Amino acid sequence: MTFINKLRSRWQNADTLLCVGLDPDPAKFPDAFIDDEDALFNFCRDIVDATAEFACAFKPQIAYFAAHNGGEAQLQRLIAHINGAHPNIPVVLDSKRGDIGSTAEQYAVEAFDRFGADAVTLNPYMGFDSAAPFLQRGDRGCVFLCHTSNPGARDFQELLVDGAPLYQHVARTIANEWNSDGNCALVVGATFPEELKIIRGIVGNMPLLIPGVGAQGGDVEAVVSNGKTSDGTGLMINSSRGILYASSSAGYADAAADAARELRDAINRWR
Amino acid sequence: MTFINKLRSRWQNADTLLCVGLDPDPAKFPDAFIDDEDALFNFCRDIVDATAEFACAFKPQIAYFAAHNGGEAQLQRLIAHINGAHPNIPVVLDSKRGDIGSTAEQYAVEAFDRFGADAVTLNPYMGFDSAAPFLQRGDRGCVFLCHTSNPGARDFQELLVDGAPLYQHVARTIANEWNSDGNCALVVGATFPEELKIIRGIVGNMPLLIPGVGAQGGDVEAVVSNGKTSDGTGLMINSSRGILYASSSAGYADAAADAARELRDAINRWR
Repeated sequence: MTFINKLRSRWQNADTLLCVGLDPDPAKFPDAFIDDEDALFNFCRDIVDATAEFACAFKPQIAYFAAHNGGEAQLQRLIAHINGAHPNIPVVLDSKRGDIGSTAEQYAVEAFDRFGADAVTLNPYMGFDSAAPFLQRGDRGCVFLCHTSNPGARDFQELLVDGAPLYQHVARTIANEWNSDGNCALVVGATFPEELKIIRGIVGNMPLLIPGVGAQGGDVEAVVSNGKTSDGTGLMINSSRGILYASSSAGYADAAADAARELRDAINRWR
Repeated sequence: MTFINKLRSRWQNADTLLCVGLDPDPAKFPDAFIDDEDALFNFCRDIVDATAEFACAFKPQIAYFAAHNGGEAQLQRLIAHINGAHPNIPVVLDSKRGDIGSTAEQYAVEAFDRFGADAVTLNPYMGFDSAAPFLQRGDRGCVFLCHTSNPGARDFQELLVDGAPLYQHVARTIANEWNSDGNCALVVGATFPEELKIIRGIVGNMPLLIPGVGAQGGDVEAVVSNGKTSDGTGLMINSSRGILYASSSAGYADAAADAARELRDAINRWR
């Protein structure tokens, strides 16, 4: 099944738009993981199993694995665990890759073949040929940065090009020119709800990955109201820290499940 | 010693502006590396040792390691080998990272602490706070994408903002606002020599990393003439495939050395 179909099925069948972000920071782990050589995997697996019921997608952030020797092997095990234990939930590898075509081919192997992700986040700055090796894998998803959640989103993404901000050109180019296989999605930060509304207007029913609720301050009502499609879906609303570190006690997995359930319900209230 | 000082010393002392790119593709390796589990490391080490005399920098491309299980450990060994055997030659890790601040901190650990690179390539699309964790490591270099060498560079980098292309805004912002510690550099493709001239005019003596001569078709004379600083330096002119795969026979290392010497000399002819 393609990424897009897997995601749409999950939205419908599990009644959730919540994406659980997996950003494992050992400094924030419960004490049980001290001296655990596989702590990245073991902690994330516990979070995954506790929150799967409430998740439309999982989004491991590769940087948190790549900061450690052997981290990639744990990431690989984690995605294999998700694919095995929760086969209906798509995995978006958050790695924001982007490079010339021959190099992009290697990155596509990294994300889709080595790690087994259903989709990958990508940076559009280098243009179409840097995206092509990913786009050509029509069964996998390509989630391009459009308007990000951080303050620096204003530095270049909002520069005016022919009277419209750059991020709108990015959205329009991807929707009109790069999405011929229907496997594109965009990253739009929850912290800029007005921009989210404009992007939804540009891209039709294209899925949007929304980081920035929780620790970064994005408002759930504004995100859902401005970002949903007419059938009340279209969004992967991500929370990482608010779920992963809901508790640092021995009850961390239950606390993560509670936080995931609450956010799923808060999202559904506005659909 | 800082990256920038190490690079400037190397330019002066070795009389070379050649950057040797390390993009190891096992499909192109000589037969001796079939069934070699450490082929990525062993092949690149041979190339490094054969070409060091002619190199102002080495640029391993992480994607070619990340496409393989265990690739990161070989990359780590490779950079450790360069730092040990060729301590005067800076290493630019080509990974084009870019993410929100908390994630960028993890990527800075990846590049500088785990892999021990002197500098890293970065994507500016997400703005200042995505760059800050790298910029704050003042002894390390931050090499930002500006105008890249691939055809897709035209898609967004050349969009006009207030009458000037986006890449010029990127160059100006980095030169004027991000470079307070003097540790910034830019990626400018050899395939766009006119744009290179304009960028040199914007950024003063800032080092420029120039991919795209050789396989991508960039012209050495145009690059040196348009890109050099007044003292005849300022450039890391990269060649990867033209050196790595100069020969697929048993004499691959000698052939790589010959190709590196020839390109160094061709560059120096126009300084």
